[in-house]
Amino acid sequence: MTSYLITGSSRGIGLELTRQLVNSNKDVTIFASSRSSNSAEFRNLLEKHPEQIMFVTLDVTRKESIEKAVERVSAKLDGRELDVLINNAGALSLGRVEDMQSKDLEEIFRTNVSGVHEVTKAMLPLMRRGGKKKILNISSMLGSITNQSQGDQVAIPSYSISKAALNMLTVAYAHDLEKEGFTVFCVSPGWLKSDMGGQNADLPVKTGVTGVLEILERTGRDGNGRFFNIHVPGWERYTGEEIPW
Amino acid sequence: MTSYLITGSSRGIGLELTRQLVNSNKDVTIFASSRSSNSAEFRNLLEKHPEQIMFVTLDVTRKESIEKAVERVSAKLDGRELDVLINNAGALSLGRVEDMQSKDLEEIFRTNVSGVHEVTKAMLPLMRRGGKKKILNISSMLGSITNQSQGDQVAIPSYSISKAALNMLTVAYAHDLEKEGFTVFCVSPGWLKSDMGGQNADLPVKTGVTGVLEILERTGRDGNGRFFNIHVPGWERYTGEEIPW
Repeated sequence: MTSYLITGSSRGIGLELTRQLVNSNKDVTIFASSRSSNSAEFRNLLEKHPEQIMFVTLDVTRKESIEKAVERVSAKLDGRELDVLINNAGALSLGRVEDMQSKDLEEIFRTNVSGVHEVTKAMLPLMRRGGKKKILNISSMLGSITNQSQGDQVAIPSYSISKAALNMLTVAYAHDLEKEGFTVFCVSPGWLKSDMGGQNADLPVKTGVTGVLEILERTGRDGNGRFFNIHVPGWERYTGEEIPW
Repeated sequence: MTSYLITGSSRGIGLELTRQLVNSNKDVTIFASSRSSNSAEFRNLLEKHPEQIMFVTLDVTRKESIEKAVERVSAKLDGRELDVLINNAGALSLGRVEDMQSKDLEEIFRTNVSGVHEVTKAMLPLMRRGGKKKILNISSMLGSITNQSQGDQVAIPSYSISKAALNMLTVAYAHDLEKEGFTVFCVSPGWLKSDMGGQNADLPVKTGVTGVLEILERTGRDGNGRFFNIHVPGWERYTGEEIPW
């Protein structure tokens, strides 16, 4: 049995990650976490797989919420380990840099960086019990400073700033947890037709998530501290290779 | 006459930048800004050069403080432009990643990223009047995700995270202001024996600041959106080359 905790599971990438994992014919327990389980699609999925998916209320920006989530996950695991943590919950705000409000920038940082930090820190004791110890952070190509500096604009500056910061956080955890056998890495899921990505995006959510799960499956200890792109045949920007920081 | 605004001028790198610029025998006006002018060394410098250095109270984390600073600088410039902005004010907190408190992480982000953003945004109208239009952000080698991922630890994670974020902010401004003739770039001043760097650091503050001012002097439009290292002969890590993001 492999256990997963996924943040931001009620829609978009998180919902599809949960769906594809539960349908993978593998023996899985999924802690599908989200601020609420209001979305009909999410509720249907939960009802369909009551044995394998457990909904966990989790607001990654609230410490008490994280503590309660750890308690619930811990009670359900009953001494067993948490194998895989997927930090997927994320926020976005649009607008060019000169119009960017620090309030928005800081709010996005709180979700995309502090939130990942707090959830990771809180889940480590449960993960240390086991052998898999994989932490996958959902980052973005837009967080590659190298790529953004070679383009002609930074289209979503507050988001890009938060993802560059998340990438550094990932590297910090990767170094610190290396000796304990963890694999901490980030993945860009591609520009997906989700609520967040919009309908002009490149790929269906399904395609991006399949790519992310392929990376999760194949990434071993040598993937620690690295930043991977999904691979989608026919797309020049989805090469499956590492993304420069 | 060239006019400069330097943040965090009361000590360390900011103080030395002010000192070296005023002693450069060039025709300069320096707006030396800081939360306070309490430091004796800073006060001495201000008193020695009352014509060339003007102290401006500025807390980069407070909007009202930034607004007041703009008013003072604007009144003194009296219709002339602000040529060079050096975003130097910065904060630091120690400790490994698992012990990092989000409160500290966010506070450092507020100074090192939001602070730079708000000061830059506020000074743009004064800079747009002129031709030089240089914005130099004091970053750090520790903000290079590439370098940090190749090391064996991220020694000061909250600082590194904030500097990676600052680098992305720099690239965002560089793209956005390119057509208007701005040069927005970042520099790593080296690990300097300042209050912040500690006495085990590599170089005297003076040496690092000389390196930063050499870069500022020689960097033209083609430096827009780039990240430079100081050059110190005999030091393998101060090559004068570009730093990978």
